[in-house]
Amino acid sequence: MNGTKDIDALIALMARLPGLGPRSARRAVLHLIRKRAVLLAPLADALTRVAATARECLNCGNVGTTELCDICTSEIRATGQICVVEDVADLWAMERAAVFRGRYHVLGGTLSALDAVGPETLRIPRLIDRIATENVTEVILALNATVDGQTTAHYIADQLPGIRITSLAQGVPIGGELDYLDDGTISAAMRARRDI
Amino acid sequence: MNGTKDIDALIALMARLPGLGPRSARRAVLHLIRKRAVLLAPLADALTRVAATARECLNCGNVGTTELCDICTSEIRATGQICVVEDVADLWAMERAAVFRGRYHVLGGTLSALDAVGPETLRIPRLIDRIATENVTEVILALNATVDGQTTAHYIADQLPGIRITSLAQGVPIGGELDYLDDGTISAAMRARRDI
Repeated sequence: MNGTKDIDALIALMARLPGLGPRSARRAVLHLIRKRAVLLAPLADALTRVAATARECLNCGNVGTTELCDICTSEIRATGQICVVEDVADLWAMERAAVFRGRYHVLGGTLSALDAVGPETLRIPRLIDRIATENVTEVILALNATVDGQTTAHYIADQLPGIRITSLAQGVPIGGELDYLDDGTISAAMRARRDI
Repeated sequence: MNGTKDIDALIALMARLPGLGPRSARRAVLHLIRKRAVLLAPLADALTRVAATARECLNCGNVGTTELCDICTSEIRATGQICVVEDVADLWAMERAAVFRGRYHVLGGTLSALDAVGPETLRIPRLIDRIATENVTEVILALNATVDGQTTAHYIADQLPGIRITSLAQGVPIGGELDYLDDGTISAAMRARRDI
């Protein structure tokens, strides 16, 4: 027993968040109780609001608070390009980079024979539908540079004949030092070298 | 912009918890949205409940949901001993060790000339009152083994003449390997060595 039943219950729930364990959950809860007015009450409200409204976009799988997400309904986003990502976190990462002004398609994972994840579990049939109906000219596969990510990219490319399909470039990350990079990255960067 | 205004606001609040930064806050929020029924809604409820009820015990400074905390009002806790700790987290750590069955007094920090923390800022006057009224026979100073903690322990000991005052033993922690211990701990353990 720590404080009281309610506080213990809160700690147990906080400890289930990724990145927090029992110890950091206790620290976080004490911090919240100390900052009740400025942090605890607003956080409780924000969670209640998101719990009531958060949902997946029926079109692309992004999270939002409406049936279709802000990006799918935006007037100013280009409709000709669809950027395919594994996960909403990847969509957010792309948006932070602010380099893509088209629309997204969130697969919700990667194909995986071991975990029995097939195309239907992912949002691949819906992607094929979208390409038929949304007048798409380019599909950008922004999948993770992992084995599963690349397998999924190849599978999707096979399903979409007759349309331009691109993937993110692979090479040395900005600020990267060769000494700290793995061999695979250096090989990829060497093979994809460009004239200056 | 990530998801929507509500989701962004939630991420900003989560990022202010100790142990979470912007990246882990985003991960946590996505995890919450995925586990809406089993985690997000219960967490929102738990936070709302704690926000409404959490308060400091008027007697000892512990957090709870009532004017006097569960420990201060417990019938089965010994009244003769008060264990003085810096912080509620320390009280919780003592309770997990389950080695002390008396009552606590949470100072709320340590004396610090640099940070202008004097005895009145801490709960030291209240401690002196309690010793006068609660029939206390022993004060156990369970303060951190830091310079500020030990300074505070000496100050409190000076304020309480005529009562038994003890402090936690210092030495090699259970499971500790000498090779990894600092010199100060080894010196303290050597000076406090005991006959077997």
